[in-house]
Amino acid sequence: MKFVMLGTGNSAMMPVYGCDCSACVQARHDPRLRREKSSAYLHHNGRKLLLDANAPDLMQRFPAGSIDTILLTHYHMDHVSALFDLRWGKAPILPVISPQDEQGCDDLYKHPGMLDFSRRAQGFTPFSWYDVTVTPLPLKHSRPCLGYAFEWQDHCIAYLTDTNGLPLETVTWLQARKVDWIITDCNYAPIECEKTRLSMNHSDIIQTKIMFEQCQPVNMGLIHVSHDLLEWANDNPEQFSSQYQILMDGQEITL
Amino acid sequence: MKFVMLGTGNSAMMPVYGCDCSACVQARHDPRLRREKSSAYLHHNGRKLLLDANAPDLMQRFPAGSIDTILLTHYHMDHVSALFDLRWGKAPILPVISPQDEQGCDDLYKHPGMLDFSRRAQGFTPFSWYDVTVTPLPLKHSRPCLGYAFEWQDHCIAYLTDTNGLPLETVTWLQARKVDWIITDCNYAPIECEKTRLSMNHSDIIQTKIMFEQCQPVNMGLIHVSHDLLEWANDNPEQFSSQYQILMDGQEITL
Repeated sequence: MKFVMLGTGNSAMMPVYGCDCSACVQARHDPRLRREKSSAYLHHNGRKLLLDANAPDLMQRFPAGSIDTILLTHYHMDHVSALFDLRWGKAPILPVISPQDEQGCDDLYKHPGMLDFSRRAQGFTPFSWYDVTVTPLPLKHSRPCLGYAFEWQDHCIAYLTDTNGLPLETVTWLQARKVDWIITDCNYAPIECEKTRLSMNHSDIIQTKIMFEQCQPVNMGLIHVSHDLLEWANDNPEQFSSQYQILMDGQEITL
Repeated sequence: MKFVMLGTGNSAMMPVYGCDCSACVQARHDPRLRREKSSAYLHHNGRKLLLDANAPDLMQRFPAGSIDTILLTHYHMDHVSALFDLRWGKAPILPVISPQDEQGCDDLYKHPGMLDFSRRAQGFTPFSWYDVTVTPLPLKHSRPCLGYAFEWQDHCIAYLTDTNGLPLETVTWLQARKVDWIITDCNYAPIECEKTRLSMNHSDIIQTKIMFEQCQPVNMGLIHVSHDLLEWANDNPEQFSSQYQILMDGQEITL
């Protein structure tokens, strides 16, 4: 099983349009440091499960028939933007499994085209994707949002974005297992004021460190990162390790 | 003054994802035949005015500071999709002039970022863009939608999408002038049933021929084209001429 990061940035991506901060200048000069909006895919036994649909080259990268299922974390535009083009394809119906969200995004439900939005994921109600058990895990965000844990043989990888910290029940679920990887949202450099930190829609680095200590995964990978976080990370390399790292676009995790 | 076609396709673009019709196969093998969603820009005296914001490479093609103004025809997703990324840039406020539309698209009004949606265009109420007179022209579409005529010295070019035919007042306005170019929506091959044809949200080739005869522009360029129209055009080349042509992505009109 291979888990591939299609994007690891937040909605502003890297470099941020028009920004001349040191992290954006670096990314403008070194294509390896560029970041698309966060999304990923699971590649297992020749099949691909896409996690969120926002890759700018989604239709070129995944020709018709090459995606088995799309799994959405939530209906914010920066996670579903590629569906607006994809839906008009002439290809077999593609299932999109997503949280229950009455409105969805713009007119996706009204004009689904080749997409089928009928299957809904519910927190802690596992389902099978072939021989992988997928468990939706509730997150803390401004609209219905689910992370997903993928269990296969004795492996477990949890993809948890967008969120600011985790609900207690999700922490408890993760603590009960040996988790190889938690991949999660770390949008912000440290926010010193606790009240401000807890009021945000995304985690800062303090929240993800708490999550790391609470859940004790073998590895933690940070995604949905901002230029502010990346500038801070450049100044504070000692805060990171191979067990607690900022992931890169194109990075592959093999289990 | 230069008018550049950034895209000339409809929302499904060319080739259509997964489609093996002859027009899509041609486009898959010849990059010159590929079509992005319809949009354009006006390049005049070193300034650029963008007409709709859906180009997949908008932020790479137009670095911060290189767009003077964005003019929107309407708030359907296939005309505004690039604004969702662009808004998070760190650049001077960019004016977006658009029809009055209470809802806009998804959360653009709620989170405008670096975009300013406050200026609204109204039908037949001209405004200046430097030494160019811009007149908004009402169209016939499923939500508030304006075409725009650009007059400069003794030139006039009208960009009229999305629409099915034209309201009488817009025809009258165009008939009163020598119009160098009408660039308009031609989404469909001929729809034989008149009732069906008139019920659509876009013109077919019959509607655009009527528009050509009614308004008598020097040239007419067709955009927002579908693979169905392109297959039909391949079989009926005698229906087109240099005065009545399907435009291509990247095509430039110099006045």
